[in-house]
Amino acid sequence: MKQSIIHDCDPGNDDALGIFVAAGHPALDLLAVTTGAGHLESNRTARNAAIAVAAAGLSVPVAAGATRPLVRERLVAGILDFELGLDRERPDLSSVALDPRHSADLIAEIALAHPGLVIACSGPMTNLALALRRHPGIGVNIGRIVALGGAWGLGNKTAAAEWNILSDPEAASIVYGAGIPVVTVPIDAAACVGVDDDLVSAVGALEGAACELAVELLSSLRRTHRQGPFTPADAPLNDALALLIAADPSLARTLPARVDVETAGKFTYGRTVIDFAGKAGLPPNCEVVVEIDTTRSRSIFVAAMTALSGRRSLTNALDPRRETI
Amino acid sequence: MKQSIIHDCDPGNDDALGIFVAAGHPALDLLAVTTGAGHLESNRTARNAAIAVAAAGLSVPVAAGATRPLVRERLVAGILDFELGLDRERPDLSSVALDPRHSADLIAEIALAHPGLVIACSGPMTNLALALRRHPGIGVNIGRIVALGGAWGLGNKTAAAEWNILSDPEAASIVYGAGIPVVTVPIDAAACVGVDDDLVSAVGALEGAACELAVELLSSLRRTHRQGPFTPADAPLNDALALLIAADPSLARTLPARVDVETAGKFTYGRTVIDFAGKAGLPPNCEVVVEIDTTRSRSIFVAAMTALSGRRSLTNALDPRRETI
Amino acid sequence: MKQSIIHDCDPGNDDALGIFVAAGHPALDLLAVTTGAGHLESNRTARNAAIAVAAAGLSVPVAAGATRPLVRERLVAGILDFELGLDRERPDLSSVALDPRHSADLIAEIALAHPGLVIACSGPMTNLALALRRHPGIGVNIGRIVALGGAWGLGNKTAAAEWNILSDPEAASIVYGAGIPVVTVPIDAAACVGVDDDLVSAVGALEGAACELAVELLSSLRRTHRQGPFTPADAPLNDALALLIAADPSLARTLPARVDVETAGKFTYGRTVIDFAGKAGLPPNCEVVVEIDTTRSRSIFVAAMTALSGRRSLTNALDPRRETI
Amino acid sequence: MKQSIIHDCDPGNDDALGIFVAAGHPALDLLAVTTGAGHLESNRTARNAAIAVAAAGLSVPVAAGATRPLVRERLVAGILDFELGLDRERPDLSSVALDPRHSADLIAEIALAHPGLVIACSGPMTNLALALRRHPGIGVNIGRIVALGGAWGLGNKTAAAEWNILSDPEAASIVYGAGIPVVTVPIDAAACVGVDDDLVSAVGALEGAACELAVELLSSLRRTHRQGPFTPADAPLNDALALLIAADPSLARTLPARVDVETAGKFTYGRTVIDFAGKAGLPPNCEVVVEIDTTRSRSIFVAAMTALSGRRSLTNALDPRRETI
Repeated sequence: MKQSIIHDCDPGNDDALGIFVAAGHPALDLLAVTTGAGHLESNRTARNAAIAVAAAGLSVPVAAGATRPLVRERLVAGILDFELGLDRERPDLSSVALDPRHSADLIAEIALAHPGLVIACSGPMTNLALALRRHPGIGVNIGRIVALGGAWGLGNKTAAAEWNILSDPEAASIVYGAGIPVVTVPIDAAACVGVDDDLVSAVGALEGAACELAVELLSSLRRTHRQGPFTPADAPLNDALALLIAADPSLARTLPARVDVETAGKFTYGRTVIDFAGKAGLPPNCEVVVEIDTTRSRSIFVAAMTALSGRRSLTNALDPRRETI
Repeated sequence: MKQSIIHDCDPGNDDALGIFVAAGHPALDLLAVTTGAGHLESNRTARNAAIAVAAAGLSVPVAAGATRPLVRERLVAGILDFELGLDRERPDLSSVALDPRHSADLIAEIALAHPGLVIACSGPMTNLALALRRHPGIGVNIGRIVALGGAWGLGNKTAAAEWNILSDPEAASIVYGAGIPVVTVPIDAAACVGVDDDLVSAVGALEGAACELAVELLSSLRRTHRQGPFTPADAPLNDALALLIAADPSLARTLPARVDVETAGKFTYGRTVIDFAGKAGLPPNCEVVVEIDTTRSRSIFVAAMTALSGRRSLTNALDPRRETI
Repeated sequence: MKQSIIHDCDPGNDDALGIFVAAGHPALDLLAVTTGAGHLESNRTARNAAIAVAAAGLSVPVAAGATRPLVRERLVAGILDFELGLDRERPDLSSVALDPRHSADLIAEIALAHPGLVIACSGPMTNLALALRRHPGIGVNIGRIVALGGAWGLGNKTAAAEWNILSDPEAASIVYGAGIPVVTVPIDAAACVGVDDDLVSAVGALEGAACELAVELLSSLRRTHRQGPFTPADAPLNDALALLIAADPSLARTLPARVDVETAGKFTYGRTVIDFAGKAGLPPNCEVVVEIDTTRSRSIFVAAMTALSGRRSLTNALDPRRETI
Repeated sequence: MKQSIIHDCDPGNDDALGIFVAAGHPALDLLAVTTGAGHLESNRTARNAAIAVAAAGLSVPVAAGATRPLVRERLVAGILDFELGLDRERPDLSSVALDPRHSADLIAEIALAHPGLVIACSGPMTNLALALRRHPGIGVNIGRIVALGGAWGLGNKTAAAEWNILSDPEAASIVYGAGIPVVTVPIDAAACVGVDDDLVSAVGALEGAACELAVELLSSLRRTHRQGPFTPADAPLNDALALLIAADPSLARTLPARVDVETAGKFTYGRTVIDFAGKAGLPPNCEVVVEIDTTRSRSIFVAAMTALSGRRSLTNALDPRRETI
């Protein structure tokens, strides 16, 4: 039986690859794509998600959501790719029409109808936090949240914090404190699954709208990758891993841990404090991925893309711009 | 023309007096009462609001909302009155049926239909924060938020923080940062309007369900008042002042100020840092009440109660318990 | 019997008036003036103290001390008086030679020899903190610290913090936590003792080096006073009050309180959280001045100046510049 | 030419091994051992240092210093070895007499006389911070501080913080901000140099007081080592590495980095935020060891012990208890 899943994201190039995994993986039944504000504005992330869903040949609801983080100001990335992928506007690509519901409400509605629902989160956790606070009853119906974000070592946006969590630390703090099973995929563990030449070639050999866009996205990740002393040689696949692991938990070795999100520090705002050893005396609230099967992850990613390779892009798109109150 | 107003509150005894002012003051057109979690649970605050609205002989929507603060844990007061007022369950009092909508959504719906809407807030700002984040478009339609809370001097729950703000500092931080005109009524200014013998007698001389309940509420405030070195001799009327000042701004002298809510300190969590003098170089985001006309405030309060004195309690109450997702 | 006292300060114009009180008050036996870095550098504050001591006709040790706050960067004031007083270099005024000892060591040495010693502190608490940490045994010999600083209401440097405490919050935190009796004179209480025309006239009628300099200092305080909505009409005498109250505790009404210094907040760094009501459940560590006898304070100040009025400035000054390792 | 060095420490079992390296390494000229409070009280750490120095057959000054951290309360470890090593009182071992000077003053005195002085620090940085604040002129004479402490990954006392830094974060903040060259040896890098069977056997084959005590200390480290999911199999040698790397920088590969110590967070107090990539836009203040030559480190350690193996313990010990003011 397929696992019902929502993908909450802020595409962005690596998130869009996650949508393709969600659409193409045989173990997943994608029920909706919900979007929030990331380093792109929320109307752009929604439109990008609608483009990716159209390219995947799916017709599932794509909803816009949070227009900004819960408490902090929106964080905007310095590195953009103005030639490839979805960082810039893509009027040349068709897209599905946006669902009129707010992401947080759509998440709640689906959760109520699908006990055991899995939510893969590859962006800031604002929509999840809003859903949990606006619809507190949904917690029991969420089987698992699989979230790409955080770090037990060095951050990738600041020395202490990882981008997704830093983008909305208060929301992350809400989610980690909600009593819902969370599987965290920190960038330390994710770093081993890089976008290498073979991966790009393998996807490049496939046909169809999704695969063509995927090659652009993968290439963009490689172009904008900045290697530092502690960063991997290849751009990490990152966000798509949340979907791969949601589909197949056996890809990852996890350890239970207490994860707390720092919302107060001078130098550590947004850090995930991952306490594997129970040093704070608090019970684990999370399974933290500490090791990923790199080879299988890449091949399953290619398999998911292959599943989408026959499809043509949907062209039923209404204008995807929408107004929310 | 009457001022359209929503009263967002967490009754609690002094909030319920605010509902009576909202119902009885000739300048106010009360459109809804919305409730959240305070030192009482959210189902209790909603039921209490429904009791107060029934006693006032009104039939306006009363909605339940936030079941807990946005980020922090719920704060529970130590001092309760188990004999008078609404701290304890009151099955002996009739109540109106609760509206099925969530407070945050009801606030948004009404705001969209009533440009210039005033929202009086006499509890934690969780519902307002949720409404602003879930429905970001409503900000332009809110004419003014009049909020009882904060302090430029000593706090009343900790030495640094006032109860309403401390109950949800992150929500308050959202509201103060939203660019909406806010009138803040800090407890320093509010302290001068105490519940004295004359006030209780004046209300006690009136008849009807609202006035009888009001006497209980006022008496309860007096019983649970703890005088300290810097607290006033009489229990402050507090929450009801937000409604009195919303109805008649001339009751208060205000100064523009920058208000920031501390969400990080070791000893100052929840403090409102009220910068009248622009010391931080930031523009004012608020009008802060620095002086209140005590005599007129009391007499207008009594006049509002007098306006309710003829009415009989509504008894059309369905069971006010409701489920939200 | 006279009270042995050290004046630890950072003159600065109001501190220098404190030195005159220390020198002229009949109840005080001034044993040393110790100085640290304030809004002037430490070599300037030492030299200014040496000028004030010379003007007072005293020959007590004047020692330089801390060249910067313990942990934070040095805070520099924006408002300086370039014409009157000690904000600018005063080569025209004679001064006593500086003692070669470091302020922190001199404090410790004197404390060991004078059980019950009182230390009046009218600047950042860096020297006191260094003395307590370098010489932990001295605590039992310090009878009382009387410190001008902090606020239970609005700060005077930020909306939350008062200048002296904000200048070195970590040092203040050390002093308040040391178990030594502290009398705090917050600016809220100090505000009532202003430098009015009568005070300036009274001192102006006196003769001698100290009184001439005092008139300059008082005038400078008036020139640099900026009146805000919550500040008093007259420039407060401030620092000198620490000496006046150290000499005569009956000038002030105090309440026991727990004082904690915020060293972590985003908006509240350096705030003194003054808990009169035991809200945090912690025992008092301080007597906090809540009311001062304005009239008597002013007249005792004038009396202290009168005691200095006959004296001529000492001219035995060696070059007051010194090197410390 | 030998490198003049002071070892500032809080022995404790691994610090004492550092004293042996300082004493036995041919490249080092140990000028003094200074001690402060660690998980043992300061009189115990001073006595333990005096025991280690005596066992090494040296007669260098051993001074007691800070009796507690600068600002925070003293942190006490849960894990003690009550049978082996120096966690318990060792009246059976002889010791040298303590120097009457305070560690902070002794450091300053030696620094002034020895430009280019290296200070190895294997405990909390309280003495260094006190020396820098009490004697600000010494900074230019300190060639390098080599400090064992901090982490870019998981902490060993909390999930965020390493023991030595957490023991006095404010002191560490002072040292890292002092503009002095610092070589940091974080526990992430140090973890690879474990106390394995071969190391214990090699030292066990040597004779003399130092080597006998060293075997006890090494065995104690192994007994109290708790292996967690991310901790190495063998107890890390830790503190002694600061001396090994001070003696021979070629043992370690370093990267320049900005190190800031968190003194404000809710979950991250005491964390070293190590910014290798300049993400905060601040210049490096430190060389951070990222890799250590495990094999050479162990063999040089054994060589240093071998150099001490002929010596007999000094027995000129006066009573090492001392009073400081």
